[in-house]
Amino acid sequence: MDLLSETLKAIVPVKDSWYDVAQKHLDNLTKPPGSLGRLEEFARRLVAITENPRPALEKKAIFTFAGDHGVVDEGVSAYPKEVTPQMVFNIAGGGAAINVLSKHAGAEVVVVDIGVDYDFGEIAGVAHRKVMRGTRNFAKGPAMTRHEAIECIECGIELAESYAQQGYQMVGTGEMGIGNTTPSSAIVTVITGASAADVTGRGTGISDETLSRKVRVIEDAIRLNKPDPKDAIDVLAKVGGTEIGGIAGLVLGAASRRIPVVVDGFISTAGALIAYTIQPAVKDYMFAAHNSVEKGHRVALEAMGLSPILDLGMRLGEGTGAALAMLLIEGGLRIYRDMATFEEAGVTDEVVH
Amino acid sequence: MDLLSETLKAIVPVKDSWYDVAQKHLDNLTKPPGSLGRLEEFARRLVAITENPRPALEKKAIFTFAGDHGVVDEGVSAYPKEVTPQMVFNIAGGGAAINVLSKHAGAEVVVVDIGVDYDFGEIAGVAHRKVMRGTRNFAKGPAMTRHEAIECIECGIELAESYAQQGYQMVGTGEMGIGNTTPSSAIVTVITGASAADVTGRGTGISDETLSRKVRVIEDAIRLNKPDPKDAIDVLAKVGGTEIGGIAGLVLGAASRRIPVVVDGFISTAGALIAYTIQPAVKDYMFAAHNSVEKGHRVALEAMGLSPILDLGMRLGEGTGAALAMLLIEGGLRIYRDMATFEEAGVTDEVVH
Repeated sequence: MDLLSETLKAIVPVKDSWYDVAQKHLDNLTKPPGSLGRLEEFARRLVAITENPRPALEKKAIFTFAGDHGVVDEGVSAYPKEVTPQMVFNIAGGGAAINVLSKHAGAEVVVVDIGVDYDFGEIAGVAHRKVMRGTRNFAKGPAMTRHEAIECIECGIELAESYAQQGYQMVGTGEMGIGNTTPSSAIVTVITGASAADVTGRGTGISDETLSRKVRVIEDAIRLNKPDPKDAIDVLAKVGGTEIGGIAGLVLGAASRRIPVVVDGFISTAGALIAYTIQPAVKDYMFAAHNSVEKGHRVALEAMGLSPILDLGMRLGEGTGAALAMLLIEGGLRIYRDMATFEEAGVTDEVVH
Repeated sequence: MDLLSETLKAIVPVKDSWYDVAQKHLDNLTKPPGSLGRLEEFARRLVAITENPRPALEKKAIFTFAGDHGVVDEGVSAYPKEVTPQMVFNIAGGGAAINVLSKHAGAEVVVVDIGVDYDFGEIAGVAHRKVMRGTRNFAKGPAMTRHEAIECIECGIELAESYAQQGYQMVGTGEMGIGNTTPSSAIVTVITGASAADVTGRGTGISDETLSRKVRVIEDAIRLNKPDPKDAIDVLAKVGGTEIGGIAGLVLGAASRRIPVVVDGFISTAGALIAYTIQPAVKDYMFAAHNSVEKGHRVALEAMGLSPILDLGMRLGEGTGAALAMLLIEGGLRIYRDMATFEEAGVTDEVVH
């Protein structure tokens, strides 16, 4: 059996009984029941995902998948394509936002060249997993072959498996790719059935004119390529991107290994939506990091029934929201592990009114 | 001149020119302008508050002011009064939620006995600043004298000053006091002019019947004591609490020393509203940590024009929201201090569309 099929077979919904195990402990801690809101949810979910009554988050990694996009030729992005490899160098050198915030969260950054249109050779600090040198321009035909799309997904699965074997207990998704809000909006349009105009935003900051063009490019590309909304791999191949495929694979691979995966912003959520369309049980393993400014993000989250943890007006990507959300998820875990119980603390657990 | 008057004189609005200094640096960092949303706001505000182009957050403390409330005799709380000193012991022993989350945020916890109805003697781990053994029942008359209310405020000011002198760069507010959502709702009712029903919630989890009684107790107390909405010290004295006064003082003291202050949930925000009514310029120094489940919280935040950082369905108090918010504010500072500029990283800073 191939890697993708094997992975899909290994993904099962988490068991409710583990939520009950966790809640019972949470209700013994010195606080009114439920008073820590979503922090308690995070703890319950970590217990249920890992099937471990004492989970840990010592080793965490954020994967920043980098890829280029042929559709940039249509003039849909504020920045030129050269910025993708420049930012890969910046991340490898430790100077990007994702480096700073991952360090704050105690997570490693793994920048993955899955599809950048640049030859990095063997430079250190980059995971060299190039499937292709940028996608083809989907305004003219499919962005990738089905085979290439599966290769991207399997790259993400392999990374999840490799890091699981090395003892990592949580992964986060991130991306870098000039132009990649365009395939993300296209994916969300196709899979959710929303209109392109309703899920297409300004990315890194395009003008009104460029925004209109971007919407038109997406509408035309969907008409031309006819992706099948029921077949997420077809959608990924025809109007997606390499880094989005890598993210979808990371989500699938993490779920198959019972590892919680923190999904960053809009592009990451488009990747998660690909994974969810292939295997809806991945939902139980995902944490939605934040609500991005990019307007298609909420549509994609709602389609999966995910509720974002943060809402800080961010729209950078790279995995920056995932890093911040990890800090809060870890807060929930620490509450679960480190607080005193009513009995230990000698505090009255008796409601009088 | 007395301490309160001196402190008020020292509080001035922050200068816009410092926001510009900070924004200029933020716009040189390797990210699209403004793409880190509120993280950038946090950095700008830290620079402007401290008037320091390279602020630091090495030393942080959260002050959990503890006090009891005579109004608990009216049956407005889910838990009995003994829980206040029990929780002070729990915090002093390191077992409470605030201990766990402060440690996560790299902040110290200072639990302050400002008005607990219990004699702690000289036990270690508690700041002994008792103004009175619990307030009087404001259903029967004023909770405190004006003199006692000022003593509470000055206690908070003194703590802010003492920690400023010890080099602390950020403070957070918190509280522990069975029954203290009742005075908080009363304060917000009087100062904002909202109806008691609209700003009164279930606290730690009271029944429908207790909730109705709580609203009636607040309405009756305001009619009986006639606090003057323009005179926040009168409001604090007549329908407030010792820990709320301590928080108001901490906010005033921090602002007078140009120290950012992270305001926790509903009760803390009632204290901040007292400080704001006395001296509106304190607003520039406050960060609203989160949006509590307690429904009066949003009303109080809106009255001051503050926008909460987190919304995690929390309603515990103690300073728990402030601890989590500190992690995010620090994220903003790290972005500001540690990211590479376009020039350093050799990244193109040129918009093409």
